[in-house]
This record gives sequence, structure tokens and C-alpha cells, in this order.
Amino acid sequence: MAPVKNTRVLFNDVPQGYPIPGKTTVVDDSQIIDLETVPLNGAILLKMREPTIESYPASYRIGEPIDSYGIAVVLRSEFEGAQPGDHVYSMETPPEPFVDDTYVGVAGMPGETAYMAWKEYSKAKKGETVFVTSGGGPVGSMVIQLAKLDGLKVIASAGSDAKVQFMKDIGADVAFNYKTEKTLDILRDKGPIDIYWDNVGGETLEYALEAANAHARFIESGMISSYNTRSQGVRNLMHIVYKRITMTGFFVAELRPKYADEFYAWIPEKLASGEIKFKEQVSRGLDKVGQVIADVQRGRNSE
Amino acid sequence: MAPVKNTRVLFNDVPQGYPIPGKTTVVDDSQIIDLETVPLNGAILLKMREPTIESYPASYRIGEPIDSYGIAVVLRSEFEGAQPGDHVYSMETPPEPFVDDTYVGVAGMPGETAYMAWKEYSKAKKGETVFVTSGGGPVGSMVIQLAKLDGLKVIASAGSDAKVQFMKDIGADVAFNYKTEKTLDILRDKGPIDIYWDNVGGETLEYALEAANAHARFIESGMISSYNTRSQGVRNLMHIVYKRITMTGFFVAELRPKYADEFYAWIPEKLASGEIKFKEQVSRGLDKVGQVIADVQRGRNSE
Repeated sequence: MAPVKNTRVLFNDVPQGYPIPGKTTVVDDSQIIDLETVPLNGAILLKMREPTIESYPASYRIGEPIDSYGIAVVLRSEFEGAQPGDHVYSMETPPEPFVDDTYVGVAGMPGETAYMAWKEYSKAKKGETVFVTSGGGPVGSMVIQLAKLDGLKVIASAGSDAKVQFMKDIGADVAFNYKTEKTLDILRDKGPIDIYWDNVGGETLEYALEAANAHARFIESGMISSYNTRSQGVRNLMHIVYKRITMTGFFVAELRPKYADEFYAWIPEKLASGEIKFKEQVSRGLDKVGQVIADVQRGRNSE
Repeated sequence: MAPVKNTRVLFNDVPQGYPIPGKTTVVDDSQIIDLETVPLNGAILLKMREPTIESYPASYRIGEPIDSYGIAVVLRSEFEGAQPGDHVYSMETPPEPFVDDTYVGVAGMPGETAYMAWKEYSKAKKGETVFVTSGGGPVGSMVIQLAKLDGLKVIASAGSDAKVQFMKDIGADVAFNYKTEKTLDILRDKGPIDIYWDNVGGETLEYALEAANAHARFIESGMISSYNTRSQGVRNLMHIVYKRITMTGFFVAELRPKYADEFYAWIPEKLASGEIKFKEQVSRGLDKVGQVIADVQRGRNSE
């Protein structure tokens, strides 16, 4: 087999504020490898079909490739359990689980995140109210639909009118654009809330604390507002004490052993049949990765 | 029976910053009642032996008496279940529970707070490390001793050298004065921590988040640093996500149904025998209440 380009997206510099494609990430297509002979060092050689954009992996190293969730086909393997031709889904070496049905997007990690944390932490009761942030994304839109299936009232926010329309289409009772409407006013009017699905942190978390009922559950899925800019801090955490709130952070990988079977038995089929709806944005080519990462963090994706 | 003075501490003004005795609270001894004839309106008339200083009751009303936990003897009663001569322990009308053993202080509400929340939320495992703030108080000192009984390493902070000595005497492995030593340095050196018993909030909560291990449990017992002054906010809540931290607020009253029996079967006896140690500060007379409240909030009690 002829030598091929092994294009990589390298982590080039720690972002000061938002990532800048070409500066904080660079595309490096200078590496040429021979698929037959490149040393595996006990690992496996994969061929990817396309990169994915979701996730916030920890501790990239300067000059090293960025990793992320992906689906790939095994070309060669020195790793027990992975045979050439197998499809694998993972962001790690060795890739696990080796499942027949491998997905990214809403049937993959983001969908798992929504499903597994909702089942584990929401303690949802029919008639309660949930506030979902980033409701237009693959995590938030799954949470909205799971909450409706559980009989909850859903308040959902996103940063564009197209996303607001999508959130209404999938069943949100109240959907609003946080860039043009005041979150606290909406929560005061349509709340109080029993569950907060937090994807954003910062001021929005303050508003959710303000609008929380006693014994509210705060599911800390992410705090994207704090990733890039030094936030001013959350000043009303006393509500946690007064209102007996539980706030929980989690990693989906730690919930998989408990929930993977029921997730894969149920969710991919519901997505395929259209009973659970989703929307995705596809970018092709590793050369787009830097821009896609920057867009996601500024909320400019899927507009 | 001759008419008697019914001295009351009235809530006179909402504190701007710390409470000021004589301004935010006033002692009113102008009310004269006849014990035999004062209307009960279905309630009970109590005689208190002494006031207590612990607790942070919600929503006092201007011009109305301040209530708190206390022990009293029933003088007259129109309430079913309370007979003259009964001892009652409560901060509410009707007072519940009517237990034979009635206590304030470490055998009462603060001790219950420590015991019940520790049992419910700490998930303590032998060999783990806990950081206890306000470790010289009736809640914190009980937590220190419960943690040692569970085989944990205990780091404890307080605001005076006398309290630091007391924390060492009751078994804290690391005890320090947060006014003269840097909390973050201590936690970096002696941590990381698996459990944080929060009585203070604010910057100390930031340090605890910084020093937390994965899957740390934060028990939100109080945030006294935020009661009186507008805090700058907690800026590093992202650790909740990254480290999969659980933060829980609670009210002891909600834990009593589950834990009251074991608490009262065990703790008062251990306190009496000296196996569990405690320290208390006694102030006599309702005229001291305003100053005592202000001292507690500035950490000037028990120095």
C-alpha cells in the first residue's frame, strides 16, 4: 500500500479567551505514513470517516494532535479484541466499547450524556418544571424530549431564533433566545424550576438558583460561559443551603456501565423512527476543525 | 399569679452588612402579661430557662420577636399533647418533638446538623480526607469527631488560636487559623480533599473546589461569609463538572425523621461520658442576644 498523508489537528497554543484557528490549533498534513509498516506499539491503526465536534477533552498537549470522539474502521491491530474491519467508537486507545452499533452525535456521546445523566440525577416527577440551557444542541435537545416523555414542563433557552423554533418543534413549552430575552424575567414568569440542566454556568446559573424551588436538582453538564472568559463568579450560592439544592457534576464515561445497554436498546431506534428528533451540523475535513471548535464555543454553530 | 414582664428581642431593621445591637435588634421589656389570663389562641405558654444562639432562621418580620431553638417548660396549654410541666424543644409552635431528653447546643440542633448530614451525604470511606470549616463550633467540632470515628484524615479551620487548640484536642490531624495562615496553601500541602464541610462559602469554597479530588462531596451546611457582605462570587465552579463533585444543601429538620432515633440513642450519652467532646459559650439574659448574634457572625464568639 502506498504511503498516505496522516493529517492531524495539533494543539498549538493555549487559548487566551476564545480559540483562534491557525494559532491555537493548526492543521498539520506533513506526516506521511505507510499503513503497512507504521509501528503500532501495541495499539491499533484506525481510518476515520469524519471528525466530530462535540466534547471538551481535558489537557491537550502543545504540538500534539487533538483527540475527540469518533467512529473509525480498524486497518491493522496489535490490540486484542480489535480485528481489521471492526468499527470502533471511542476517544481513547484502546477504544471501548467495541459495539456493533457505533455512533457519534445524538446517538453517541452527547445523546448518552443527556440520557444517562437525566436518568441518574434528575429524579424527575410528572408535573415538575425543568430549565434546559443550550436546548438546541445534541445534549439539550435530547434532555427536552426526555423531560417531555416524563411529563414535565420544559423551559428551554438557546442563542438563535432557528434554535428556538427547533426547541418548540421538539416540545419545549417555553423556548426563548437568551440573546434577545432576559433569562431571569422568563424564569420568574414561567418558573419556579425543579430541575436545571446546566450547559452554560455563569450568570445563567445565578438566575437558575434564583428561580429554583426547594429541593431542586442542578445537573452540571457543562459551563461553556466559563471556558473562555474569566467569569465574575456566582454570587448567590446561598440558595443551595436555603433551598436544599443538589448540584452534581458527572462524566458520561462513568455512567456508561449502568446505562449503556438501555440507551443502545432504545435511543438509536427512536432516532431512526423520528420519535425522538435531532438536528446536526456536519463539517467535512480536518482543515475545518479549528473553525468548528471556535464556532461551538461562541455559539455560532447551527445558526 | 402576679403579672410578669414578657421580655422579647425584636427584629427592628434589616442589617446592612453586620447586625448592630440596638439598631437591627432591640430588646423590648415593655410587655407585661398575666400568666393566668393571657390568651393562648390555641397555643401554649412557655417559660424559657435561657435563650440559645445557634441557627439562622429565615424571614424575621420587622417589629416582631426573633425566634430560635430553645428548651422551655410548659406553663399553660391549649395545644393537645403538651401538658403543664412538660419540657419541649423547638423553634416553632407547636413545638415538636416532645421528647423526654431535650437539648440545645451540641446535643440539640447543631449536633443533629452535623450527625445527620454527615450520615446522609458524606459517603465517608476510611482513608479519605475531609476539610471542615468553623471546626471550633458545635457543628464543625462534631463533624471532626465523626470523621475521625470513620477513619478519615481531618483538616480543620477556625478563626482563633483557642479554637485551633480545641480542634487539635478533639482529633483534627491538621488544624489552622484561617486568619493567620493561607487556606489554599494548607489544602495544597495537606489535601487533596474528598469531603468538604462548608460552613463559610465564598473564597474558602473556591479553595476547596481547587483542592477537591474527583467525586468529592461538598456538604453545604452554611455560607456565613455571604450572610452579611456581598461576596465577589465563586469563580471556579467548573471544578464541579471536571471533578464530578456533588454539592448538597439541606435542612436538619428534613433529616430528623430518618436519623433522630439513632442520634438520641447514641450522641447525648457519648457527650455525657466525654467520648465526644464539646465546648459551649453561655450567655444569660435576653438583653445579650443582639450582641451574641453579631459576635457569632463576625466569628468573635468563643475566643
